Amino acid sequence: MRMYDLIMKKRNGGALNEEEIHFLIQEYVDGNIPDYQMSAFLMAVYFQGMTEEETLAMTLEVAHSGDMVDLSAIKGVKVDKHSTGGVGDKTTLIVGPMAAACGVKVAKMSGRGLGHTGGTVDKLEAIPGYRTTLSREEFFQVVNQTGISVIGQSGNLTPADKKLYALRDVTATVDSIPLIAVSIMGKKLAAGSDCIVLDVKTGSGAFMKTAEDSLALAREMVAIGENAGKRTVALITNMDIPLGNCIGNSLEVLEAVETLRGNGPEDLTDVCVELAANMLYLAGKGEMEICRQMVLRVLGNGQALERLAVMVEAQGGDSRMIRNPQLLEKAPLIYPVRAPRSGYITHMDTENCGIASAMLGAGRETKDSRIDYSAGIVLERKTGDFVEKGQVLAQFYASDEKLFAAAEERFLHAVVIGNEKPERQPLIYARVTRDGVVNGYKTAGKE
Amino acid sequence: MRMYDLIMKKRNGGALNEEEIHFLIQEYVDGNIPDYQMSAFLMAVYFQGMTEEETLAMTLEVAHSGDMVDLSAIKGVKVDKHSTGGVGDKTTLIVGPMAAACGVKVAKMSGRGLGHTGGTVDKLEAIPGYRTTLSREEFFQVVNQTGISVIGQSGNLTPADKKLYALRDVTATVDSIPLIAVSIMGKKLAAGSDCIVLDVKTGSGAFMKTAEDSLALAREMVAIGENAGKRTVALITNMDIPLGNCIGNSLEVLEAVETLRGNGPEDLTDVCVELAANMLYLAGKGEMEICRQMVLRVLGNGQALERLAVMVEAQGGDSRMIRNPQLLEKAPLIYPVRAPRSGYITHMDTENCGIASAMLGAGRETKDSRIDYSAGIVLERKTGDFVEKGQVLAQFYASDEKLFAAAEERFLHAVVIGNEKPERQPLIYARVTRDGVVNGYKTAGKE
Repeated sequence: MRMYDLIMKKRNGGALNEEEIHFLIQEYVDGNIPDYQMSAFLMAVYFQGMTEEETLAMTLEVAHSGDMVDLSAIKGVKVDKHSTGGVGDKTTLIVGPMAAACGVKVAKMSGRGLGHTGGTVDKLEAIPGYRTTLSREEFFQVVNQTGISVIGQSGNLTPADKKLYALRDVTATVDSIPLIAVSIMGKKLAAGSDCIVLDVKTGSGAFMKTAEDSLALAREMVAIGENAGKRTVALITNMDIPLGNCIGNSLEVLEAVETLRGNGPEDLTDVCVELAANMLYLAGKGEMEICRQMVLRVLGNGQALERLAVMVEAQGGDSRMIRNPQLLEKAPLIYPVRAPRSGYITHMDTENCGIASAMLGAGRETKDSRIDYSAGIVLERKTGDFVEKGQVLAQFYASDEKLFAAAEERFLHAVVIGNEKPERQPLIYARVTRDGVVNGYKTAGKE
Repeated sequence: MRMYDLIMKKRNGGALNEEEIHFLIQEYVDGNIPDYQMSAFLMAVYFQGMTEEETLAMTLEVAHSGDMVDLSAIKGVKVDKHSTGGVGDKTTLIVGPMAAACGVKVAKMSGRGLGHTGGTVDKLEAIPGYRTTLSREEFFQVVNQTGISVIGQSGNLTPADKKLYALRDVTATVDSIPLIAVSIMGKKLAAGSDCIVLDVKTGSGAFMKTAEDSLALAREMVAIGENAGKRTVALITNMDIPLGNCIGNSLEVLEAVETLRGNGPEDLTDVCVELAANMLYLAGKGEMEICRQMVLRVLGNGQALERLAVMVEAQGGDSRMIRNPQLLEKAPLIYPVRAPRSGYITHMDTENCGIASAMLGAGRETKDSRIDYSAGIVLERKTGDFVEKGQVLAQFYASDEKLFAAAEERFLHAVVIGNEKPERQPLIYARVTRDGVVNGYKTAGKE
């Protein structure tokens, strides 16, 4: 078999068979296929796409290119939840405890943030003492004991994906829907859970800017998951407006705790309830409506919040921070950003809101940058709200007052104020299962 | 400027400006753009194409990436003739002397053959003593003295093309019409002639298999040449049938001499007269019909043949071989290939005829293979002819009788005999100038 022939086949619109895809991934990881041939292949995939059989075969090859996590030591149905990433996305901190409180096992390996999106591991590290690195045995033990553990990625998971992603990143082949699907689902299959709930973010703060692309990605991922024998559901959720009001690590932990207390923003609460209910649904806890009721119950009676506290404790964190989150470190400086004119907020470019937060110290530009956990943004107004000129749009938190000016400029550039009240956007655009797509049943924003 | 942005721009259907193309080629040649980014770019070009401005800019960059040959020491109008390569294509040996005998200066650097197509330099080396390597000064002197010199390529011509071609060759991006046009025209511009006649071969023995692709390539090349200030014409000629009857180095020299004597095959003679007439036309010798008459005159009165003999002599070759080509080395073994059935030859897969000749020793598989100059094929029947079962289709020439069987199998596989006389194919499909395209005015094959 020759790589040249595989490039030619894909370039001419053909589909690679399993054996060819095995060769492609295996030989690339082993260093026998040079980057310059793989990048030509990836660009051909960008133009020609891949069939359902090809994405499945490639996902399985990527998953098996490194360690496959064996979660069999954990009793019960293990359900993973994956978000494609967005601004102010603290759903894992809320959804995981909700699902665990309802009897689902959540054994989650999470990433760090880069650029404008935050990472769950960074948020958890804002809690003093919390250990994001556990041995496999400790990880299993925490899940068996508390129902949930969230740790950082470790081990040699999907080296093929790491190598492919690094190449795509410098050859303008990142935004190919089948390649994104392969990358995400390869990691999910390697991570070992039984079922997978996917939160596919869409809009100005998401990687996928349009609902159509998000839907296409969701369908590909659900097909891969189901064809690989994992029950899989995807929700397409709004990331054209930041989710909740807080952006930044400590601030998002605080907001997660408030949401688990029942005092969270409506959009964040609704998305979390729906994601958690889908986790229960896949774990076989009953029909969707029953699952929703179960989630609302553990939200109302404090059991979900308690589950977060117990997990934090089991991983060495200070659980007083969960039971009384006002104890979390606050940035020493607060700066109110005011509306430059009166009118309705018609749009918030959410990616730039995330970048403004990162500029305050909450994010990292490169893998090695240090994070200021206390920094970030608390939004007081969001898309659809009316503001008077001079009213506070958001409070900025930082440790260095020199950071405010540039972040404010970036933020105000992202917030569009107009005369007409904008139409409400869907909060959840669609739910995608192996049986098909059910379109938008939740809307976001205020009447 | 970042290569990433250029890949993205091309991938999304944009056109690079001159500055961007300068960066692309210069930094690639200098080793600052890695192969894996260039191959992704080339694959994006395969799908998105390039504008006329882009191909011109890239051709100029490729031409100027190395030495630019300065032919100003040669008096008169220098006209180059380039063939895209085919089987039995000995036109340079005929057309060059024809044009030189009519007062055009032909200062030609030619390539060696690889695979199924022969190279002019190899054919000339079949003449004992002929030196294909001359100093620049010797080269100019031979042209000034005899009107023509044909030598091998030397110096550091178009290093960008060499590096790009090597990459395209292993990434399935060779057959992109704009990239082919850039590669050919970059070399032509660097070679320094004032005008360029392009012979774009089409059909089963050519690189371009269809007349449409050949026409598209011809138009791109003519546009580049004219936009670069060189008068340029292209003929689209038939390579679905071998040109002339001889394939192999000595055999083709013999056939070229016979053609210059006026005894050549009709198809070869017609193509050569037309190519030479176009060289005269570009050199300003008059309207096409006048140019044709001039060529026919030097063909009829022996001046064209004499010009070949004089050039061979000036380059150290034994000109007795030209005046009496029966002196050229003959292969010691001759083997007649006979028709396996009666009927009309409806098709000859010309590439495979070329491969059969190479298998007899006439070609080289790799750059370092040695050639048997005396080996090859003399066709006794071609497409359109009727043959009786057992009649000789071709005579094979070789120095080792073990080579006949496999070459015969390959050849007979390439020759299709059917019951119906096939339609005559065009010999020259079209003539392409800056003013447009004139379609087929010559047909090939026998009535």
